[in-house]
Amino acid sequence: MYPFCYLNGEIIPVKEAKIELSDLGLLRGYGVFDFFRTYNNKPFLLDDHLDRFTQSAKEMQIEIPVTVDEIKAIIDELISKNEINEAGFRIVLTAGSPDDGFSVSTPNFFILVEQLHKYPDHVFVEGVKLATHEHLRHLSHIKTTNYIIPILMQKYADEQNAFDILYTFEGNILETTRSNFFVFYGKTLVTPKENILIGRTRNFILKMAAEHFEIEERPISTKEINSVDEAFISGSTRRVTPVVAIDDATIKDGKVGTNTRFLQELFEKHVNEF
Amino acid sequence: MYPFCYLNGEIIPVKEAKIELSDLGLLRGYGVFDFFRTYNNKPFLLDDHLDRFTQSAKEMQIEIPVTVDEIKAIIDELISKNEINEAGFRIVLTAGSPDDGFSVSTPNFFILVEQLHKYPDHVFVEGVKLATHEHLRHLSHIKTTNYIIPILMQKYADEQNAFDILYTFEGNILETTRSNFFVFYGKTLVTPKENILIGRTRNFILKMAAEHFEIEERPISTKEINSVDEAFISGSTRRVTPVVAIDDATIKDGKVGTNTRFLQELFEKHVNEF
Repeated sequence: MYPFCYLNGEIIPVKEAKIELSDLGLLRGYGVFDFFRTYNNKPFLLDDHLDRFTQSAKEMQIEIPVTVDEIKAIIDELISKNEINEAGFRIVLTAGSPDDGFSVSTPNFFILVEQLHKYPDHVFVEGVKLATHEHLRHLSHIKTTNYIIPILMQKYADEQNAFDILYTFEGNILETTRSNFFVFYGKTLVTPKENILIGRTRNFILKMAAEHFEIEERPISTKEINSVDEAFISGSTRRVTPVVAIDDATIKDGKVGTNTRFLQELFEKHVNEF
Repeated sequence: MYPFCYLNGEIIPVKEAKIELSDLGLLRGYGVFDFFRTYNNKPFLLDDHLDRFTQSAKEMQIEIPVTVDEIKAIIDELISKNEINEAGFRIVLTAGSPDDGFSVSTPNFFILVEQLHKYPDHVFVEGVKLATHEHLRHLSHIKTTNYIIPILMQKYADEQNAFDILYTFEGNILETTRSNFFVFYGKTLVTPKENILIGRTRNFILKMAAEHFEIEERPISTKEINSVDEAFISGSTRRVTPVVAIDDATIKDGKVGTNTRFLQELFEKHVNEF
């Protein structure tokens, strides 16, 4: 964690930043957040992340106490004050501490600046395995703070030697605990758009890919695992991470696909020049 | 809120009791709790609540940092120091602040002492209406802190002039957001036991009722609403609350049933003498 954070109007040392026990984010898990990272110390896809954050807050009926422009100014100040060398930003909004203990109230709003999680090179070079789990997130389109299943399933993922859990539901592949899922059929890129959280990196990749590939946003059946040519997942820190196996099945020959590699390089080029 | 609470080893003023922003209970909604109330200033069904709390913690792989006997001693001290006049106790355990931001770590453990929510007399005398909502809680047998749906649905309940939301799932009635559900067919008392949180008050009522009624623990179909003779819900503060309508359907003639009234009086007698 970087030393300075923002909490309810002030930039303060994170060690002094604390929240009351009666906050509904803590007592009732009632909160929303968003997370983005910097490249070259500039926030990447910031507007897209703040759009989603605003939408999440609206759906959960919590009023963000500052404007989007004010959030941007706070982020600039945090970048400068923390003297970051690339960082992740976690923007969190909870329902506060109502008298009745159960209604959305004056929110708590804070921003943490975090060291980026570094994945080992082989993740991006050789690709990863995913382990499936039947699960449909409630309110999957909202970025709530509810990550009980991902944390609880981490042990199972480790046992399976899997990088992440891939949610399936009633015959379809949805998303991983913190990434969107894509497959290639030849030069056609396919990704779900229902019953998932719409990733900002996902949307950026689709836009980038549209110049080179056919795009299909549609349900992906679990039965397709055996017939797709390539697969990958996307996310703010995972970027384009090739998927070479799902449970006991390899994707084709278990090697990273050429179209995935092409998209990965395109993505890296873009962010390096950002 | 009563003035003193317990937090990580100390009894301190609740106004000074705060938690770090990196706690996973706050950032990831990863926590468990239990709640019980006093009658005559003595905790009611304390052992049953602490059993469930211990079980919830175990299932979520969080280690409770004190023994059950130590929890009881803390509760005694909180009762005395707060000079309570009946109170609710909220025992909360979160996954703490791990270095990796995503694993169960040294927990935060706290106990809040709350004023009891008082429902108006007509709730117990005339009964209430419930509004159904199709929803199966994830990990429904564990008392996690995830109450997003109940808080979000409160507005809908108010619009429907309903006391609470009754969860249904694939044709069965499960539970309300914070109560268990029962029906009577003549002298037979029926309540679900799968896909719900097993209430401590529920179990107490079943034990009490077994001396007077036939008991069936089994799924209740939504179609049964039109044929049951009586219905009620149970909970620590709701005790035995008669249900006289569900959505647009009244239960029989919309009056509180005689067996429900009998159980209600039995319950009140028991807790008054506790």
